[in-house]
Amino acid sequence: MRCPKREVENMIEADRPSHSSTKAHEESEEQKQFRNIFRQIAGDDMEINAEELRNVLNNVVKKHKDLRSEGFELESCRSMIALMDTDGSGKINFDEFRHLWDKIKSWQKIFKRYDTDHSGTINSYEMRNAVNDAGFRLNNQLYDIITMRYADKNMNIDFDSFICCFVRLDAMFRAFHAFDKDGDGIIKLNVLEWLQLTLYA
Amino acid sequence: MRCPKREVENMIEADRPSHSSTKAHEESEEQKQFRNIFRQIAGDDMEINAEELRNVLNNVVKKHKDLRSEGFELESCRSMIALMDTDGSGKINFDEFRHLWDKIKSWQKIFKRYDTDHSGTINSYEMRNAVNDAGFRLNNQLYDIITMRYADKNMNIDFDSFICCFVRLDAMFRAFHAFDKDGDGIIKLNVLEWLQLTLYA
Repeated sequence: MRCPKREVENMIEADRPSHSSTKAHEESEEQKQFRNIFRQIAGDDMEINAEELRNVLNNVVKKHKDLRSEGFELESCRSMIALMDTDGSGKINFDEFRHLWDKIKSWQKIFKRYDTDHSGTINSYEMRNAVNDAGFRLNNQLYDIITMRYADKNMNIDFDSFICCFVRLDAMFRAFHAFDKDGDGIIKLNVLEWLQLTLYA
Repeated sequence: MRCPKREVENMIEADRPSHSSTKAHEESEEQKQFRNIFRQIAGDDMEINAEELRNVLNNVVKKHKDLRSEGFELESCRSMIALMDTDGSGKINFDEFRHLWDKIKSWQKIFKRYDTDHSGTINSYEMRNAVNDAGFRLNNQLYDIITMRYADKNMNIDFDSFICCFVRLDAMFRAFHAFDKDGDGIIKLNVLEWLQLTLYA
């Protein structure tokens, strides 16, 4: 029997060079391989729920000794499912998982880059650079908010908190821009729209 | 040595009748008692962090055999701290804890009222009435969102998910009304305001 977890763990490390001449073919093969793995994680309903997401993420974390984490909690995974569930099915489908997985792969690289003392966590100062490196432009108040919300009492952010933070940051930027249809940088919400966006998060 | 957890557990059940003639005195006594308990939970810094909140909530849950729960997770408590932390200290102070505790007491009563088969959970249909009973007026889409976000695969909501849902609902209503200064039912946010409200949640 194939082990989907093992394959996904390997895929998070995969950083294959893309040769332009063979890229289209490679992508299609990789896509096929990823779809097989997805099928095995998701099971018959072909959608990933919070328990399934937790299992696969915790298996990745267990394998990577350089990522410190108490493990992803169910509540964190429920929140991530909500934030990534763009079609409102309550679970994440193939495309949503693919999107999440690609993001996690790139954020994991950023995490390792800023964990300069190899403690397996990054501190609140390093977090600021990590957030910038990922392309998010925030103000000082928001950096402080991230530390309050995601750092432990020693002001360190472990891998699972780091990923939860980035998933939320990414989703909230997307939600804002989706709502800001006229692109004027201001969104207008009534109370039901506000609750729809903030309860399912 | 006094046992703060035991006392808080008892207080969640306390439903003392208030006689108007003695009310002021009673409140002050009860306030004093609550402050002592708070001091013991919070420790020297006189603020409650996520770990401290988790300990006290899980002790309540353990004692109440009619409340089914896998226990409050740290991530849930971090989120509740963020949602209740009105002064932005990163922890909850006495007044914020008092507010949370009074809410939990009243929501616990609602939970028990709607758990008609005494399963220790409430289903998604009962949840709709529970939400109404707590004074929140939502539309069908929001009821569905609550089920997607907080119910398990059998469409049941256990006690810790129920409380997390109500804390978020309550906080998001408060946040909306705080932002809707002119009371026209519409809030206008730029991206940084949006992120401040949704990252610390």
